[in-house]
Amino acid sequence: MKEISGGVCAPKGFRAGGIWCGIKASQSKRDLALIYSEKPCTASAMYTRNRVKAASILVSQINLASGRCHGVIANSGNANACTGAAGLAHARRMAQLAAEEFMVEPNSLAVASTGVIGVPLPIDKIEAAMGTLADSLRSDAAGHEAALEAIMTTDTRKKDVSLEIEIAGVPVRLGAMVKGSGMIHPNMATMLCFITTDAVISRDLLDRALRKAVNGSFNRVTVDGDTSTNDMVLVLANGQAGNSPIESEDTGYEIFAEALGFLCVKLAKAMARDGEGATKLLACTVSGAENETAAEVLAKSIAGSSLVKTACFGADANWGRVLCAMGYSGIEFDPDTVDVRFASSAGEILVCRNGASVPFSEEEAKRILSEEEIEIIADIRAPEGHKGRCTVWGCDLTYDYVKINGDYRS
Amino acid sequence: MKEISGGVCAPKGFRAGGIWCGIKASQSKRDLALIYSEKPCTASAMYTRNRVKAASILVSQINLASGRCHGVIANSGNANACTGAAGLAHARRMAQLAAEEFMVEPNSLAVASTGVIGVPLPIDKIEAAMGTLADSLRSDAAGHEAALEAIMTTDTRKKDVSLEIEIAGVPVRLGAMVKGSGMIHPNMATMLCFITTDAVISRDLLDRALRKAVNGSFNRVTVDGDTSTNDMVLVLANGQAGNSPIESEDTGYEIFAEALGFLCVKLAKAMARDGEGATKLLACTVSGAENETAAEVLAKSIAGSSLVKTACFGADANWGRVLCAMGYSGIEFDPDTVDVRFASSAGEILVCRNGASVPFSEEEAKRILSEEEIEIIADIRAPEGHKGRCTVWGCDLTYDYVKINGDYRS
Repeated sequence: MKEISGGVCAPKGFRAGGIWCGIKASQSKRDLALIYSEKPCTASAMYTRNRVKAASILVSQINLASGRCHGVIANSGNANACTGAAGLAHARRMAQLAAEEFMVEPNSLAVASTGVIGVPLPIDKIEAAMGTLADSLRSDAAGHEAALEAIMTTDTRKKDVSLEIEIAGVPVRLGAMVKGSGMIHPNMATMLCFITTDAVISRDLLDRALRKAVNGSFNRVTVDGDTSTNDMVLVLANGQAGNSPIESEDTGYEIFAEALGFLCVKLAKAMARDGEGATKLLACTVSGAENETAAEVLAKSIAGSSLVKTACFGADANWGRVLCAMGYSGIEFDPDTVDVRFASSAGEILVCRNGASVPFSEEEAKRILSEEEIEIIADIRAPEGHKGRCTVWGCDLTYDYVKINGDYRS
Repeated sequence: MKEISGGVCAPKGFRAGGIWCGIKASQSKRDLALIYSEKPCTASAMYTRNRVKAASILVSQINLASGRCHGVIANSGNANACTGAAGLAHARRMAQLAAEEFMVEPNSLAVASTGVIGVPLPIDKIEAAMGTLADSLRSDAAGHEAALEAIMTTDTRKKDVSLEIEIAGVPVRLGAMVKGSGMIHPNMATMLCFITTDAVISRDLLDRALRKAVNGSFNRVTVDGDTSTNDMVLVLANGQAGNSPIESEDTGYEIFAEALGFLCVKLAKAMARDGEGATKLLACTVSGAENETAAEVLAKSIAGSSLVKTACFGADANWGRVLCAMGYSGIEFDPDTVDVRFASSAGEILVCRNGASVPFSEEEAKRILSEEEIEIIADIRAPEGHKGRCTVWGCDLTYDYVKINGDYRS
């Protein structure tokens, strides 16, 4: 497995583009993106679990039901959520307009939106710009870049990755872009992830690989616990690599699934680090829990605690808050068996042993916690010797988080 | 029911006091409190549900098992939590020292602590000061004030209340003090609530009344979701009012339970308003849910959302975040039946009807949300016409929250 350039255009047969169509006020910002494959793709997607779902989510669920798809059209600047029946019609129309442009089935594209909730989508602007959008498609990195820019909102950096793997001697490529600050900002920073691959793979196995990858990555990111109305992860496989078809959990599948997992973890960490106002990436690992699920709940309780997050911002080795957050996670464990360590590139330090204080150098702890990537490690050393282990990612809670979210719409 | 003065000393036969014994650095701050009744009391208590429990909690659970108790000794400046076996011995000794002072059973007092986690309790200082503490007890408001000051930590204001009711023509008094900022600060601002009453009431009914009151008040406060290792609500009834004993759910019980509920709600709201860095009290009401529990979960999801809290700080009528928080609460409901309103002493404004935007004046909304007490009202108007309704209390999320918690221990 090696990293390559090109993003979603790295795999054979995909083109992408992005333009400004007038949804965002500033002409200097792109707001309409398209990723397209002439050859129909095998498609798999995962959507937000929020009860409040944007129109784009509902339409994509219908259009992808067949598991076949040519691509995805996405806009930023407007979430088309809480917009009622008109919103649904707009989302359907948006996918249709792209389909007409390429003379393919009207329901053969997915649609995604991100932006402010409760404002009607200016579908006329999208319709007027469709020709320009189609003409802007390119099969190189520039096309990928343009599309990525067009789905970004409060993101402070571009988050993408592309890989090449070999399946039975045949090179296969995966490319991806993600936008969003870890569900931190439902009114604007929905998480959208578009993944392309030229692998030949059955829908069942694509589904399986995607679920595994997402559960081990995006679903282990916690920023402020809020989940968006528009979240969507989409993978499109157009089969252009010509590898021997992946139709069972064989070596080929393992290689593909591993690459997809690596790709999603990399993007998930980038997303957590890009949380609004965040200055630090937190990786919180719990081990010795009864099982992996229990470890995940405990780790998320720590990484999600506002007190832990603010302490990390202040580089304050406040280990009591870590233990406390584990305590209210709802998971059963014996506090007297817990060790807590803080780690970073500056070193590692034990601050709590068997649930009680141990002497440690505040200066050293401060130095360790002042790095941009911090690890919080809680080991449950119960006599039963459970093996449940999980790492989740989050970020610190800062003044800027309050600033950005305090009066966001103005 | 009328409010009276005197706090925990308002009921007959209770004395209270508070001194500085040296746990806190500054001599100007009291750190050791005692509330005592010569006549043994019927006692009922509720404790933190955090898996990590302070030594004081474990010892109080044992000492109150009998349901009889003379009072409570409490310290601030040290939580005596995550302190192992030594911590347990210290907590037991602390209760014992007070008991010896009054020559009562060694296990006939409750004990409470609040302060930094993981630091050994300086029991010698408490022992040395015990005589002074006992001598400081007074049966008037001054005694109450001194005790209240001695349990305060990051609290910015005193939170107390005392009431007089009549049971079959006999005046009965209740008094209470609370410290804490709504579980906002587990390393320091544990929630402690001490309630005294001279009512004659059986333990069963005192338990029942306390559970009902706490579930409808303190358990409906959410500040940042963190719950402390030391939380405790204690009620002591010494029977000095001489009312006809409350031994069944008769009118007398109803009157007493109503007063206890009123008292707890008043203190719960004061606590939410006193959340660290908070500038506003949020009252979030959800109606039309399937039942009261569902309404409570929905309301807590809204009041607990960092995005809703920051929007309130910024007086930003960001109703999408309210709907979104309901959406990820885990409760089933149809978003298309939800109306959202914001209200305060400056007026009321509808911002969302049937889950979708309605035109409203941003200026008016801003004026309403700029008040110190804000109401967020979400009505689910489902055809089934469910009646589940609940109000929870919280506060806004501000720069000062980050500041206070970012480098707390320094």
